[in-house]
Amino acid sequence: MFLTPQEFRKECRSEKFMGHTSGLCKGFAQANLIVLPKSIARDFEGLCLRNPVPCPLLAKISEPTSLDNDSPIVKGDFDIRTDISLYKVYKNGKLYDEKPNILSEWTSEHIGFLIGCSFSFEQELCLAGLTPKHQLLNRNVLMYKTKKLLNPSGVFVNCPYVVSMRPYKVQDIEAVRKITSLFIKTHGEPIDWGYDAVARLGIEDISIPDFGDAITLDEDEVPVFWGCGVTPQAALEMVNVDGISMSHSPGHMLILDITDSEVKQL
Amino acid sequence: MFLTPQEFRKECRSEKFMGHTSGLCKGFAQANLIVLPKSIARDFEGLCLRNPVPCPLLAKISEPTSLDNDSPIVKGDFDIRTDISLYKVYKNGKLYDEKPNILSEWTSEHIGFLIGCSFSFEQELCLAGLTPKHQLLNRNVLMYKTKKLLNPSGVFVNCPYVVSMRPYKVQDIEAVRKITSLFIKTHGEPIDWGYDAVARLGIEDISIPDFGDAITLDEDEVPVFWGCGVTPQAALEMVNVDGISMSHSPGHMLILDITDSEVKQL
Repeated sequence: MFLTPQEFRKECRSEKFMGHTSGLCKGFAQANLIVLPKSIARDFEGLCLRNPVPCPLLAKISEPTSLDNDSPIVKGDFDIRTDISLYKVYKNGKLYDEKPNILSEWTSEHIGFLIGCSFSFEQELCLAGLTPKHQLLNRNVLMYKTKKLLNPSGVFVNCPYVVSMRPYKVQDIEAVRKITSLFIKTHGEPIDWGYDAVARLGIEDISIPDFGDAITLDEDEVPVFWGCGVTPQAALEMVNVDGISMSHSPGHMLILDITDSEVKQL
Repeated sequence: MFLTPQEFRKECRSEKFMGHTSGLCKGFAQANLIVLPKSIARDFEGLCLRNPVPCPLLAKISEPTSLDNDSPIVKGDFDIRTDISLYKVYKNGKLYDEKPNILSEWTSEHIGFLIGCSFSFEQELCLAGLTPKHQLLNRNVLMYKTKKLLNPSGVFVNCPYVVSMRPYKVQDIEAVRKITSLFIKTHGEPIDWGYDAVARLGIEDISIPDFGDAITLDEDEVPVFWGCGVTPQAALEMVNVDGISMSHSPGHMLILDITDSEVKQL
């Protein structure tokens, strides 16, 4: 049964659905969520604006039932506190709960941020016959915390650039770059590639990802790295945040009302 | 004699003035210029959008006598081919001339880009009693090509992040960060600081800058690094550009019609 994004979000709201969103509402874009106390919201927005490749800011949420500036990426009935299938809750920067809504945690002292997600360009890679290997193997994408630092912003200092990795044959890299370059608000083209890039990024062992599922590269494949939407969560861990912060639980994204193609117009 | 920016640009146009612009038209912002063949303009714009800290894009110039989108940063009578005191001209990516106008080089196949310049925040640092040391010594700011790479865009691959460096006492760094953080379109706050940063950025010898004048750090000072407007010129050198490209000559900036304070509103 195909649900529209609005129907799907209602399923999350009523807690009928609590699973992963990969492959759901096919053709529609998805987004990462970070909710922060207002005291550090300005610094976080600066972090996004200074690092738009790993942290592409799609929208801010001052009131939980609408997006600021009437952003068209979510329409109609909406509540960011319930419309994701699973949330993480942090207390003073440390994870302390995972739950299906944040109705009792969100206060008027919070601001939410929606960050672009690479699911959109993965779909277009599949259509071009360049399906990412982790999809072929039905696993989660590989992600690494690198030694490359973000441009700092206020309290967000020494934050690592987190990358996702998809293996490709060298002769396919230019096509992969071209396709993903159009998705400016969902990380765009790769930030580096090849085995030299492993050293440049300070990744100690390419066979051991920091997040996601390990896969083996074939002899004719090299690693290709993109900015990754886990970067804001890793940044949050570097900062002493007083009070409650929240995020989606990895893989449990917000499903948007715009299509993967429309994401390219943002 | 104080000249307004418009009067000053006329002096450049008539080639009465061919010197450096540091300290001229005090209180008004200045900008870096890059002019590229249209064939790589889109990739360059992508490079700026993916690396807004070293390459803050202020305006595009499709027609030489006006800025695109009626940008308010230059008003009235204007011609980008004559209103800078000295230009560099590159043929197939190699410098081949330096001259007071580019009237015969600019064609309908060129697009210009104005990039923010740190002179604006230097002025505000001076007002706060945190005058950069190179100014006290009446020298040019120190600049380094780092081993940190830009987020690539199309033909712009493996381009180095160029940084400027100003020494400060450790106890002054937070004030310096705060003041410069407001200048989002002229590089904003520092990207790294302290002697650890020298290694992180891959700078081999802090006493030997790649551009600008060497100065000695006192024992109670540490290096503080900012994104630098020379980055686009260094990127141009990494790319095989067919045909003619142009830039301002370092230190010979375009003087804008907005003040240092107004730059903060961009």
